[in-house]
Amino acid sequence: MLLDAAILDRDDPLALARERFELPDGVVYLDGNSLGPLLRGVRERVRRTLDVEWGRDLIRSWNVHRWIDLPRTVAAKIAPIVGAGADEVLVADSTSIDLFKLLAAGLELRPGRRTILASSDGFPSDLYVAGGLASLRGDARLSVVPREGIAAALDDDVAVLCLSHVDFRTGALLDLPALTAAAHAAGALACWDLSHSAGVVPVDLDGDGVDLAVGCGYKFLNGGPGAPAWLFVARRHQEAARSPLAGWLGHAAPFAFEPGYRPAPGIDRFLCGTPPILSLAALDAALDAYAGIDLSAVRRKSIALGDRFISRVRAFALPFEIASPLEGPRRGSQVSLRHPDGYSIVQALAERGVIADFREPDVLRFGLAPLYLRFADVDAAVAALSAVVAMAEHGAERHHVRAAVT
Amino acid sequence: MLLDAAILDRDDPLALARERFELPDGVVYLDGNSLGPLLRGVRERVRRTLDVEWGRDLIRSWNVHRWIDLPRTVAAKIAPIVGAGADEVLVADSTSIDLFKLLAAGLELRPGRRTILASSDGFPSDLYVAGGLASLRGDARLSVVPREGIAAALDDDVAVLCLSHVDFRTGALLDLPALTAAAHAAGALACWDLSHSAGVVPVDLDGDGVDLAVGCGYKFLNGGPGAPAWLFVARRHQEAARSPLAGWLGHAAPFAFEPGYRPAPGIDRFLCGTPPILSLAALDAALDAYAGIDLSAVRRKSIALGDRFISRVRAFALPFEIASPLEGPRRGSQVSLRHPDGYSIVQALAERGVIADFREPDVLRFGLAPLYLRFADVDAAVAALSAVVAMAEHGAERHHVRAAVT
Repeated sequence: MLLDAAILDRDDPLALARERFELPDGVVYLDGNSLGPLLRGVRERVRRTLDVEWGRDLIRSWNVHRWIDLPRTVAAKIAPIVGAGADEVLVADSTSIDLFKLLAAGLELRPGRRTILASSDGFPSDLYVAGGLASLRGDARLSVVPREGIAAALDDDVAVLCLSHVDFRTGALLDLPALTAAAHAAGALACWDLSHSAGVVPVDLDGDGVDLAVGCGYKFLNGGPGAPAWLFVARRHQEAARSPLAGWLGHAAPFAFEPGYRPAPGIDRFLCGTPPILSLAALDAALDAYAGIDLSAVRRKSIALGDRFISRVRAFALPFEIASPLEGPRRGSQVSLRHPDGYSIVQALAERGVIADFREPDVLRFGLAPLYLRFADVDAAVAALSAVVAMAEHGAERHHVRAAVT
Repeated sequence: MLLDAAILDRDDPLALARERFELPDGVVYLDGNSLGPLLRGVRERVRRTLDVEWGRDLIRSWNVHRWIDLPRTVAAKIAPIVGAGADEVLVADSTSIDLFKLLAAGLELRPGRRTILASSDGFPSDLYVAGGLASLRGDARLSVVPREGIAAALDDDVAVLCLSHVDFRTGALLDLPALTAAAHAAGALACWDLSHSAGVVPVDLDGDGVDLAVGCGYKFLNGGPGAPAWLFVARRHQEAARSPLAGWLGHAAPFAFEPGYRPAPGIDRFLCGTPPILSLAALDAALDAYAGIDLSAVRRKSIALGDRFISRVRAFALPFEIASPLEGPRRGSQVSLRHPDGYSIVQALAERGVIADFREPDVLRFGLAPLYLRFADVDAAVAALSAVVAMAEHGAERHHVRAAVT
């Protein structure tokens, strides 16, 4: 017997965080794992960046409004969310490009080893990046194995084990502490992509001895479409780590315009070109969503939302395979269902104001963002799902549903 | 004898373009070569992107508002400015990162050759990028020679000649057609950085047979601080060219999330990660500044503004070395002066509302953006320069000027 959603929402210690967001009326937004929604503070911040900073103060804003520091000051807001020191995190470029930097640095940090080991259920772009790097270097290789084969594949040629913390299809959460320890036991570095966990799953990069990590800014961190990504390099590696993308902002003296490259001390050497300030300012303001928020409360609510979602799908006896782990602690912050008509079901849900997403070949993903989702939203989403399925079974929407696929 | 500025401004066919910009009152802005000013249309566009696209339509905006196409649609506005086909240009990432992609592709397009040849007065970040790439590959090298030594250094090991179209310190314009031809005669590719020329110097990439090019979005293209950069790959190279930064958006089927990388056909393979949409939307709207603009008129006015600037500095007998070429056709769209107190003079000018910039060790740069600068602005700037120098010579500001340096 499930508690009434109204009671859960009334007693939710995170309930007030929802007021920070600009959510459209009549929408249940379950795609915060793809694109987090707009925060009120972001709109104000971007307007100020346009009107006062760029528009009025122009070039002087690099100093007066500290644009030049944003890659570090924004990173300092992300650091506590992932259990890192502020001097270990930097915001720059995209997740894929940051991963390229880290994997190249990781190969150099383990001379004599030539393999990047990844899991076949890792985020595909991460695999592409690793493969592209191996091909460019010529003397490195990417080895992709099923998740259960990682331990056996950790041989003495592996320089970096590169994994996604959350399986983007199923929402399964990998055991970061154990896999990091396994990498270290094999003499390899551990590099984690936290794009689908930062902000919703408490992470302790320093406590778990992680070497390298990246994450995206536009999912649960709500930084806006294509927000810059963040990267982490453990303090102990920073002096020896080099970025292969040597640009002027990663130089020890960027404004000296010296002919030769000297990497900046610390994490700054992982900067490359000039960062997109409008997008960076949006991310900066978006991270204030986490001000005063207890991440363990976020995790508790995330698990409770997911448990409720799964319970209700089962209570309605809906014809979906539940692709996510049933045990909350083994899930990230999403529930995935499988259905051969998944694409058209997601389209039909959207027409009912329930926004989820679809991933080939048959996965419906429901992202659960505890800062703005209510238990009542979960109930509404599953009710809509039930209605869509019932309509389809009665054939009323079948023509429409098929048409949406073609 | 110079014509009166009021007459020149009255007869200026570009005069109305100034109305497209939001220029602060009382400011003469001569730093458009570092950061172009805000356009009215940009403010409106970014607001719409925030409120309607991200805020209301959320994840659906990737399709509904064609965010997914922006790297191509924005590029299509840049293509005619640089004499390229729309299918040869792409907007993505930063200038430094795009140059990394192009130089890596260029080395692969000339197998058996290992050298990237660059000029010692090239933009330093370009040299850093090339050096970083050579170091990562291991089997490549960067050779940096004085500009006058390029011809002699073009031997049969040079894969790519990488040059900046405009010397960022002096404003000297390199002979793009001749140097491109010289590279080709030696069997090398020509890769140009047009960051300081696109939008103010007519360029004919296709007509001159250029192979590869990059440019920044935030200087004379006015895309805003850290706006995404653009890259050009000549059509004839696209099928064989590979980006070393293999990310999901450069995949032939990005939403299939296949485990293996298959480069997209054409220029799209040079995409990598998700682009920063707010910054990209700003650049998109900013490029409308060039709607209906005749680039040859821009060039004529640019040269006239520069000639007038130099003439007036000489008429006042100001104590500066003129670092830029005196002949207009040999200059980009800036005038550079040298003075040992350059830094403090630029500071003092800013206090008078004349915004220029300083580059180590002694260069004062005055960027000339014909879309919004008036001849009267040039007169006002040189008058301010004269006043600052006069004050300094009389000692009245010397203490202040010195204090600004420390």
